[in-house]
Amino acid sequence: MAQITVVKVGGGVLEDPASSKQFLKAFISIDGVKLLVHGGGRLADQYLLKLGIQPNMVNGRRVTDKATMEVVTMVYGGLVNKQLVTQLQRHNVNAIGLTGADGNIIVSEKRPVKDIDWGWVGDPTKVNEPMLTGLLQQTLVPVIAPLTHDGVGNLLNTNADTMATVVAIALATRHEVTLVFAFDKPGVLTDVDDDASVIATMNKQDYVTLKSTGQIHSGMIPKLENAFEALEKGIGKIRIAGFDALADEAAGTTLQLQK
Amino acid sequence: MAQITVVKVGGGVLEDPASSKQFLKAFISIDGVKLLVHGGGRLADQYLLKLGIQPNMVNGRRVTDKATMEVVTMVYGGLVNKQLVTQLQRHNVNAIGLTGADGNIIVSEKRPVKDIDWGWVGDPTKVNEPMLTGLLQQTLVPVIAPLTHDGVGNLLNTNADTMATVVAIALATRHEVTLVFAFDKPGVLTDVDDDASVIATMNKQDYVTLKSTGQIHSGMIPKLENAFEALEKGIGKIRIAGFDALADEAAGTTLQLQK
Repeated sequence: MAQITVVKVGGGVLEDPASSKQFLKAFISIDGVKLLVHGGGRLADQYLLKLGIQPNMVNGRRVTDKATMEVVTMVYGGLVNKQLVTQLQRHNVNAIGLTGADGNIIVSEKRPVKDIDWGWVGDPTKVNEPMLTGLLQQTLVPVIAPLTHDGVGNLLNTNADTMATVVAIALATRHEVTLVFAFDKPGVLTDVDDDASVIATMNKQDYVTLKSTGQIHSGMIPKLENAFEALEKGIGKIRIAGFDALADEAAGTTLQLQK
Repeated sequence: MAQITVVKVGGGVLEDPASSKQFLKAFISIDGVKLLVHGGGRLADQYLLKLGIQPNMVNGRRVTDKATMEVVTMVYGGLVNKQLVTQLQRHNVNAIGLTGADGNIIVSEKRPVKDIDWGWVGDPTKVNEPMLTGLLQQTLVPVIAPLTHDGVGNLLNTNADTMATVVAIALATRHEVTLVFAFDKPGVLTDVDDDASVIATMNKQDYVTLKSTGQIHSGMIPKLENAFEALEKGIGKIRIAGFDALADEAAGTTLQLQK
């Protein structure tokens, strides 16, 4: 396969009908072989509350007890995933919705209990690259929900950014891969209030400098740390782009190991 | 492919942990290429009630308004489907969970409004046999939820018996197919209170006779009518067997066009 684009989109973009529509339009217009990893956290919160279950978040991550796991399985693997697939099919994109359990594509380890018991949360340990490549060769477009399994009968709630990254790393062992994070801003900004302040390209040294001057801070730091780590593991290119501008190679911030 | 077994199991069997486990054991032990179509109606009722939505059934079929469609998408496509896949993966069966929208495998037409407006209910019009065969050739075991799509962006609630039948008919155009209905009785009985009264083989003439004597009645009539119609459309063999005895070719009732 010439080139594979792995896109990650969060639940925030998908929850709003207008932004979801713009995102899908941009995703559809990406040329060539592609796959999508999606979140869905906000919609899960709504259903949890409707079912009388209090969402339990620690540092932005969900503590997932048994009842919560059932709900996220339904919302991520059922509602969000199947609605995305159905919308893509409508536009003649041959999408196939998957969790890590389907085709055994992503196995995770249940997160060990240290300070916090995260419950049914998993961290990916193995990606079934031949299976994913097989589906892509059938001209299918995998749409992956943020759920994995442990291989011994349990589904695990899994971070969508992490899943997109491990999938991209695994595919990069045999293919040329671009990983695109669909963002609610047009890219990484030097001034969060100015959408025109997008950093077009950033290498590791730029990142270290921008972090030291405080222009990059808070939530962007772990995202960029992970991204540079993924570049070192073989992903050819990582972009952070507005959800409506994914297909425009010049849009957003392109991360590189070296200039 | 030598031989394909299409199994249909209802939500009643899956809802009870003991019968679900026995069913899975039997399904796993079926030799060769296989796929599963499942229901999930009873669990959907439970979640509908928890969410304050009154299930609306007419003649045993669900009237599916928008809110109900969201819930069945979550329960069938998310919870039931992914739990089955995860359990099968645990036993090294490479299951892949699908709805009709995934890989565009089953397109339906929204049921026209006549006496009753069924809402978001669809009747299958097209099965993507090459796609299903492609997945089977990758040694995947499709696990299909009772949901289809209309090709223009809508998911549709679809009867699982019908889906299993149309899938079997489509596969039978190129392969030898056996369709097995997993039943909560050991087969078709001449005396509903006597599990030993299983009819081993039944052809169309036998069926007409048993119906005229009243030994076959009520819910079995549409099931058998559909089955004989499917045999006429090319399915090699149809069996109605206990959910714990699917793999035993001698168990249950085998339907044949002629003796």
